[in-house]
Amino acid sequence: MNYVGIDIGGTNIKAGLVDDSGAVRDARRLPTQVNDIDVLLKSLCTIVAEFQSHDSVEAVGIGIPGLRSTRTHLIETSPNIPCIHNLNLEALLSKQLKLPVISENDANAGAYGEWVAGAGRGLQYMAYLTIGTGLGCGLILSGALYRGASGYAGEIGHVNVEPGGLQCACGSTGCFETRVSAPGLIATARELGMNETSAEAIYDAAIRGNTAALAAFADTGRFLGIACADLINLLNLESIIVGGGVMASADLLLQSATAEVRRRAFEPAARICPIVQSQLRSDAGLIGAAMLARDRQ
Amino acid sequence: MNYVGIDIGGTNIKAGLVDDSGAVRDARRLPTQVNDIDVLLKSLCTIVAEFQSHDSVEAVGIGIPGLRSTRTHLIETSPNIPCIHNLNLEALLSKQLKLPVISENDANAGAYGEWVAGAGRGLQYMAYLTIGTGLGCGLILSGALYRGASGYAGEIGHVNVEPGGLQCACGSTGCFETRVSAPGLIATARELGMNETSAEAIYDAAIRGNTAALAAFADTGRFLGIACADLINLLNLESIIVGGGVMASADLLLQSATAEVRRRAFEPAARICPIVQSQLRSDAGLIGAAMLARDRQ
Repeated sequence: MNYVGIDIGGTNIKAGLVDDSGAVRDARRLPTQVNDIDVLLKSLCTIVAEFQSHDSVEAVGIGIPGLRSTRTHLIETSPNIPCIHNLNLEALLSKQLKLPVISENDANAGAYGEWVAGAGRGLQYMAYLTIGTGLGCGLILSGALYRGASGYAGEIGHVNVEPGGLQCACGSTGCFETRVSAPGLIATARELGMNETSAEAIYDAAIRGNTAALAAFADTGRFLGIACADLINLLNLESIIVGGGVMASADLLLQSATAEVRRRAFEPAARICPIVQSQLRSDAGLIGAAMLARDRQ
Repeated sequence: MNYVGIDIGGTNIKAGLVDDSGAVRDARRLPTQVNDIDVLLKSLCTIVAEFQSHDSVEAVGIGIPGLRSTRTHLIETSPNIPCIHNLNLEALLSKQLKLPVISENDANAGAYGEWVAGAGRGLQYMAYLTIGTGLGCGLILSGALYRGASGYAGEIGHVNVEPGGLQCACGSTGCFETRVSAPGLIATARELGMNETSAEAIYDAAIRGNTAALAAFADTGRFLGIACADLINLLNLESIIVGGGVMASADLLLQSATAEVRRRAFEPAARICPIVQSQLRSDAGLIGAAMLARDRQ
């Protein structure tokens, strides 16, 4: 059996034809139409039709950057893709495709992917963090994807770490996302006197040995470590898997993150919970979405 | 059927004969022997024998202030009761009593009590916070007591809120417990110029209208609100139930806590999650321990 996994980002749509084992057999990438639902739906249908032209497709899973209600199946909040707000995307698409379609928060989909086919195989308790434009998180608790009372769970990006800290897009201040994300890295670098405006430029400077850039990565890693220690003390996990665009610079982050976990988490809980890199990398979300479709989760 | 629930604190042991519905039919209280395991075991056996002198007892549940491993059943950390450290208390007591005995972290027991017989009845997703000498927490997730990979879960008291903040007994700095607890209230009051050395004295001053005392409670409530917002954003709960000794002053705390939740948590998640007071008050732990014994959890 084959499943289509689609990861809708604010910039690009990534789609894959995924087999039962979670292996990607074919892939597509195209720009996201964030303001026109008809164009977006047509793009999604075209992708699925292309896969269907050479393989049978059993079901479709979609990861979306927003909160999806498990009560109404509506997408309640999706700041980066306004046209899907308050929409039952899975019902709309299912009607057009005449296939089962599920939708899920993209970080939850990534967590499911790593759990079923990546670095979390065989675990009962894990978190998947994805560091990019924001800080996403999905949780596997007691051997199942944890969604909470209405599907909004997992938002470690909006757990507080500096109550009087930087303004967050969510309306609060000092959320982890204001520090552990590409914009967070840039803000920290600016506080250290740098003028770089992209995470890549700060990374390049760090690789060249620039002290401020190295300090910016170490600070970001420390905040990542506090987030990991919080998850360990609250949820007693077996692993924290870290992915996302910023993890190209994983070595610069994970060392200071791990040191911070050692300083802050309960030793018997931290001992059993390694902080590791994503195995599925940028495919985690689409593989997870396909596996959620496979399992009709 | 009747069950004995025992809540072992650093100062007192509270015990109750509890029926199937969670009602306390008889109760005892005596000082805790924190340094002599033989004296402690003898006290526990005497309590159970007293209840047995007039009623049959099916099983015994014990709440302990420490981390209990679900893997080994040993109590791994118990700073306030050194004599039970590294001990399988339930096996020892079961052998002497010839009855089934379970043990559990006291805040987890309190959460279970509120869930089965108190303010959390019928919920699938809730947290119970107990504010006293420390800040304890137990979680009910997906309709079951959540223990995590090895039994240590629920430690919101040691989630970070001020990375460079006050020294915490756990070894880290700036944990919620350093602010949301009786010692935390005292520390905050001191920063505001007060010299009071007990939560009760600060409470009395607040009742008399003392501005600094009122500000200390408002600040403590704000930190409690940040903890609640963190739990809501991460776990998407249906209720947060707050108890413990400091909740005698609940009105002074919950107002600022609720305002802080509104400022910081996702609106669709916060809307469904009221912050309420414990119904079982100081009996939550012993009732929960008895109900865990009833359910052989």
